Amino acid sequence: MQLAQGPRVRFSPFYRKSEAAGMQTATVYNRMVLPLATEDPEADYEALTQRVALWDVGCQRQVQVQGPDALKLCQYISARDLSQLKIGVAKYAPLCDHQGRLINDPVALRVDEDTIWFSIADSDILLWVRAISGEREDNVEIIEPDVSPLAVQGPRATDTVAAVFGEWVRELKFFHFKRINHEGIPLVVCRSGWSKQGGFELFLEDGNKGEQLWDLIWAAGEPHGIRVGAPNYAERIENFLLAWGSDTDPDSDPFEAAIGDYVDLGVEHDFVGKKALLAKREQGPTRELKGLLIDGEPLNPNPQPVGLQNPNGSRAGETRDIAHSPRYKQNLGLAIIEVPHNLPGTKLQVETPNGWRPATVTDLPFDL
Amino acid sequence: MQLAQGPRVRFSPFYRKSEAAGMQTATVYNRMVLPLATEDPEADYEALTQRVALWDVGCQRQVQVQGPDALKLCQYISARDLSQLKIGVAKYAPLCDHQGRLINDPVALRVDEDTIWFSIADSDILLWVRAISGEREDNVEIIEPDVSPLAVQGPRATDTVAAVFGEWVRELKFFHFKRINHEGIPLVVCRSGWSKQGGFELFLEDGNKGEQLWDLIWAAGEPHGIRVGAPNYAERIENFLLAWGSDTDPDSDPFEAAIGDYVDLGVEHDFVGKKALLAKREQGPTRELKGLLIDGEPLNPNPQPVGLQNPNGSRAGETRDIAHSPRYKQNLGLAIIEVPHNLPGTKLQVETPNGWRPATVTDLPFDL
Repeated sequence: MQLAQGPRVRFSPFYRKSEAAGMQTATVYNRMVLPLATEDPEADYEALTQRVALWDVGCQRQVQVQGPDALKLCQYISARDLSQLKIGVAKYAPLCDHQGRLINDPVALRVDEDTIWFSIADSDILLWVRAISGEREDNVEIIEPDVSPLAVQGPRATDTVAAVFGEWVRELKFFHFKRINHEGIPLVVCRSGWSKQGGFELFLEDGNKGEQLWDLIWAAGEPHGIRVGAPNYAERIENFLLAWGSDTDPDSDPFEAAIGDYVDLGVEHDFVGKKALLAKREQGPTRELKGLLIDGEPLNPNPQPVGLQNPNGSRAGETRDIAHSPRYKQNLGLAIIEVPHNLPGTKLQVETPNGWRPATVTDLPFDL
Repeated sequence: MQLAQGPRVRFSPFYRKSEAAGMQTATVYNRMVLPLATEDPEADYEALTQRVALWDVGCQRQVQVQGPDALKLCQYISARDLSQLKIGVAKYAPLCDHQGRLINDPVALRVDEDTIWFSIADSDILLWVRAISGEREDNVEIIEPDVSPLAVQGPRATDTVAAVFGEWVRELKFFHFKRINHEGIPLVVCRSGWSKQGGFELFLEDGNKGEQLWDLIWAAGEPHGIRVGAPNYAERIENFLLAWGSDTDPDSDPFEAAIGDYVDLGVEHDFVGKKALLAKREQGPTRELKGLLIDGEPLNPNPQPVGLQNPNGSRAGETRDIAHSPRYKQNLGLAIIEVPHNLPGTKLQVETPNGWRPATVTDLPFDL
C-alpha cells in the first residue's frame, strides 16, 4: 500500500533530501517517516559495505532527562548500571518495564552534567519515563528535544566525516562523542551507528539546519562514492544488531533477546524490572533469540513473523526475520526458540512462502 | 512513498479483506497498518454518509486492566470520573500525564466486574499504564488482549448489523454494548464509532475469526450498498470528532483540545494530571482548538501542520488540518489558536501550497 501523509506522522529535517536522493519505501517509526530502501536494495547494501551511505534516521528520537535528579532517575530506569556514565561516552542501555519485559534498547548519552539523552528505538519512552518520574516526583524535566540523528556509515565514513569536521574525528573512539558547533550548525558527533561497517551518528540540534548538514556531508562523500541509504536489513542481520520490536516480541526480556550482557543484576544497582528478572532467572530460561541457517534458494524477507517447528511438526518457537545474506551467500534467520530446541546444531523447520524449509540453530552473532 | 512491511508493523485480522476490497493507502497506527482510502475518496465519503461503510480499525487497540484494583487504577488514570462506570455502557475518557498533557482519548468499556478496556488512539497507553501501576504496586494485570474492532458506519449500518446479529441491536442505545458469541465468534457489539453517521463497533475477541466476521457483515450489507472504507477525514472534520495527535500537539491539554467537558475536576475525583490542570486553569487559557472557514477554491489536506497568522503577519497559532467539506462545499480547518485570536469571527490567514488564504475563526463543532 501507499503510505498516506498526515499531521500525526512527522517528517525529519532530512526527509526531502533523502527522498530526492532516491528513497522509495518507508515505514513509520516513533510516529515519524523512516525511509528504508531505494529501488535497488542490492546497491544500497554495496554502498554501505564498500563505500559510504547516508541515512535519514531522524526518527531515532531522543528522550532528554534534565535536572538535579536526572542521573538518579536514569539509573533507576536502566537495566544497565549507568552510575559511571561520563560526559562524552555513550552506553547501550536496555530498558525494562516492572515485569522485566524489554521495552526499548536505547543508547544513553550524557551530554552535560545534568542532561542525559536516551536515543531510542520505536516505543514511546517519553511517555513511560514521564509516568515513572511523575509517580516518584523526581526533580527533572523530560522532553523530546529538537535533535535529529543523521547516520554516515561504511568504510569511507571516517574520510567523509573528517573532510567536513576535521581530522580530530579520526581519533574519536567507538561510542565516544563530542558536542560541537560547525559553521552555525549545533550537533553531537558520535562514533556509532546501526551497522558494523563503522561510522558516525550526527545528532543535529537544530531542525532548521537539516538540509545544510545533509549537503555538507553529501559533498564531502562524493569523492568516496556516497549513496543514500537506510538501516540495512541484510547487513544488520549478518552482524546481529538487535532490532527491538522485530527480533523481540512484546514479552521478550533482555536475556531472551540475547542482550543480557548489558543487564547489571548486582546488589548495588536497583532498577525497574530487576525483581522480575531475578525471579525469572530463578526459574531458568524458557526461550532465547538465536540464529538460523536456512537451506535452499534465496528467500525474501517475510512481512510478518512465521512458524518454526521441529522435524516432527511440533512447535519450536517463532521465526521473526529472514534475510538472504550477500556476504555469506546463505539464508539467515532470527528466531525466538523455545528451550530445549535452542541448542546450536538443532535441526528445525521454518515456514516460508514456498513451504517448510530445513534450518539449523546457531549462536549469535553468526560466525560463518 | 511505498509502505514497507516488516515484523515490527502488524496487520489486523481484517487487513487482507480490506485490501482485497480496494484499500490503497494506509498509515501506521499503534504499530499496526491502518488502511485509509480507496482510489476514490469521494465514493468512500458517499458510502459512509448515504449507505454503509465497513472499516478495518483493528489498530484501535485495547488496553485491558483486570484484577481487584482495576477500577481504582482506571479511576486514577482517567481525567473523567469513572467511579460510576457500568458494565455495558462505554464512556469517552481522556487521559492526561502528570503535567496535564492529553496523552490519549480512549473509550472505556467495563466488560465485566473486574475488567476494563481502554479502546485507544495512537499512543502507547499499555506502556504508560504499566509504568504507573508498577510504581503504585496495584493488584492488576494489564495486557493488550486479542481484540480487534471492526466498524460498521453509515445510515444503513443498523440494518446491516441487525441482519447479522438480530433485531435486538436496534434497541441498543448510543455507547451501550453487549458481549455475545455469534456462530462461534466472540465479540462485543457497541453502538459507537468514529463518525457522526451512526453505526457500530464490533470488538472481535478472536483474531482467527476476522475474515469470517468480515464476510458475514459484507454479505448482510450488500443489499444496502456496503463499501469498504476507513475513518473519513472530511466527515470527521465536518462533525468535529477529535483526532488525537492530528488536532493536538504533544503539549495540548484537554481544555485546549476542546474536550474539557469530559474532565471532572471536582474534589471527589483525584487523577493523574489534575494538579497541573488546576494550576493551568488558575492562569487562564493561552490557546484553544477552533474551527476555521477558509476562503477560496477547494484545498487538499496538507501532509503536515502549517502556519496561521493575523492579517498583519504576526503569528496566531498553527493550522493542524484542512479539508474541503463535500457537505458544506467549503474549506474547513482545525487550528490551535493563541488567545486572543481564538474569538469566533476573528479574521486570520492560513498558509497553503497556493499562498496565504483568508480564514474566519469559528466554534466547534461547525454550525453551518
